[in-house]
Amino acid sequence: MAVYTHVDAGTLAALLLRYDIGTAVSFKGIAEGVENSNYLVETTRGRYFLTLYEKRVEASDLPWFLALLTHCADAGLPVPRPIADRSGKALQTVAGRPACLIEFAVGVSVTEPTSAESYAVGAALGRFHHAVADFAIERPNALGPAGWAQVAASCAGQLDQIEPGLEALLTDELTFLQKSWPTALPRSTIHADLFPDNVLMLGGKVTALIDFYFACTDLRAYDMAILIVAWSFSTDGRHFDPAIAAALLAGYSSTNALTDPELAALPILCRGAALRFALTRAFDWLNTPADALVTRKDPMAFARRLTWYTSATPAQVIGA
Amino acid sequence: MAVYTHVDAGTLAALLLRYDIGTAVSFKGIAEGVENSNYLVETTRGRYFLTLYEKRVEASDLPWFLALLTHCADAGLPVPRPIADRSGKALQTVAGRPACLIEFAVGVSVTEPTSAESYAVGAALGRFHHAVADFAIERPNALGPAGWAQVAASCAGQLDQIEPGLEALLTDELTFLQKSWPTALPRSTIHADLFPDNVLMLGGKVTALIDFYFACTDLRAYDMAILIVAWSFSTDGRHFDPAIAAALLAGYSSTNALTDPELAALPILCRGAALRFALTRAFDWLNTPADALVTRKDPMAFARRLTWYTSATPAQVIGA
Repeated sequence: MAVYTHVDAGTLAALLLRYDIGTAVSFKGIAEGVENSNYLVETTRGRYFLTLYEKRVEASDLPWFLALLTHCADAGLPVPRPIADRSGKALQTVAGRPACLIEFAVGVSVTEPTSAESYAVGAALGRFHHAVADFAIERPNALGPAGWAQVAASCAGQLDQIEPGLEALLTDELTFLQKSWPTALPRSTIHADLFPDNVLMLGGKVTALIDFYFACTDLRAYDMAILIVAWSFSTDGRHFDPAIAAALLAGYSSTNALTDPELAALPILCRGAALRFALTRAFDWLNTPADALVTRKDPMAFARRLTWYTSATPAQVIGA
Repeated sequence: MAVYTHVDAGTLAALLLRYDIGTAVSFKGIAEGVENSNYLVETTRGRYFLTLYEKRVEASDLPWFLALLTHCADAGLPVPRPIADRSGKALQTVAGRPACLIEFAVGVSVTEPTSAESYAVGAALGRFHHAVADFAIERPNALGPAGWAQVAASCAGQLDQIEPGLEALLTDELTFLQKSWPTALPRSTIHADLFPDNVLMLGGKVTALIDFYFACTDLRAYDMAILIVAWSFSTDGRHFDPAIAAALLAGYSSTNALTDPELAALPILCRGAALRFALTRAFDWLNTPADALVTRKDPMAFARRLTWYTSATPAQVIGA
């Protein structure tokens, strides 16, 4: 992760003139985000992120993302608020890229979540789903079953370069999930990428949910499945911790309980979540030079999760 | 520029336990620095940089750099202070790399310096040279004339790939400078890399001199020459601004005047500074893949400066 588009102090100063947020006191490029360029901007009035949206984010999607963040912030959720300029506009053009100033959020990403932290994150996801019940604008999920098939097709014939057997594992699973993926469950705006990286915490409390650039409209329980698959395993995917899965679900139930059909669908939704990240990581692995500065994330960490889910009982999936 | 070594929240928390500076409130990887990994750490007590020293910095040099920064901070210079842990130790090992927590400094790097800003920076360099008069430990300059010859040798036969004629320009200049480089001028600890990037300013005042990792012991006036060569030209090296050169010198004189022999040597010292950056940039250019995330800096920007100096009069060099 790096800064892709350089913004100089003069450009920043010109941008800040559009806002009522003071003048720049400090300005640092930040090495994080899904292939966006991020700067930490401190002004005489406060602290902000300046995000320049790079190629992976469609400019036409930006109004949706910014509306979602504003909706959530208005609802009192711990979500960084996009800052509007004097004319009410949040979306800008900076150094030729679409860009937005966003509220700075304190907090640190958890590396090895405890059960208590997992409970707090589950509760935060429940609050998020509750708050977006009246966020009516839909955005299709480009990485649902049809999207997985596209990613799989573009990796076809190459997956066993990563690990022998991976091609069969992922294509068999794709075939199975395309037949059995649920469609009648409650739909919602979902975060769709709520990994520990994307949750800031402080003293056991969630201070911010961040990086909404995969958010979309899809099955509400699929968001819970992604959370469980992302949080309940060791990073390498070799060890499942039932106490974490149970805490995530208990936390969610404390703010926004899932229905019985949603709970019953969790095993298959978790298989879908594991497949989704195994596939996209495999694609990135095959398409990123080994010596690139960008750290390649190991697709096998999610292939192993997938294998675990294919033989787990429903009770095991929910950590019971 | 990017983060090369990943530090997780658990590692940071363990590190902070060694210090009396509170617990982590925020933790962001920063995309800056000379191939080091930098994190911005906010704690309950203050803000700090955590720098992990990567391959370009010799671990054996770190005690010298940290002693220099501490000496300057003690002298009241605007220089970020290394933070000592409870046992008095500033140099740590984090994620397998030598590392140091350093005071955070506010301020923004100037992109297009004005004469007033240049005067302020010249004055700051003068104060720095004054403050290090009693910093007795020496560190040789690896990028003096002998170092230039090594860099030139490792680029031999390839320089004209960058631009036809570059090989002759740089090797002829190297031969000339090796014969005529002054040796009897006052020596000092010098910053040796005081580009606009390495100066933070706020409201026209210098808030911090940063990135001392080329600092060494060498001719004091050579530091002034580097400052003039770095600041007085358009970024591409095509346009010299005499008012900036004059302001840098006037600022320096206001705090620590150069001697007559030093002033008389400036034309040749500026040629040396231009050659030094043309050579190291050429080396990096030839040894960095064009598609690397690291931005390659154009060696021609300094080759053009060098050409300007080879035909400039002494009066022109000092902006008179």
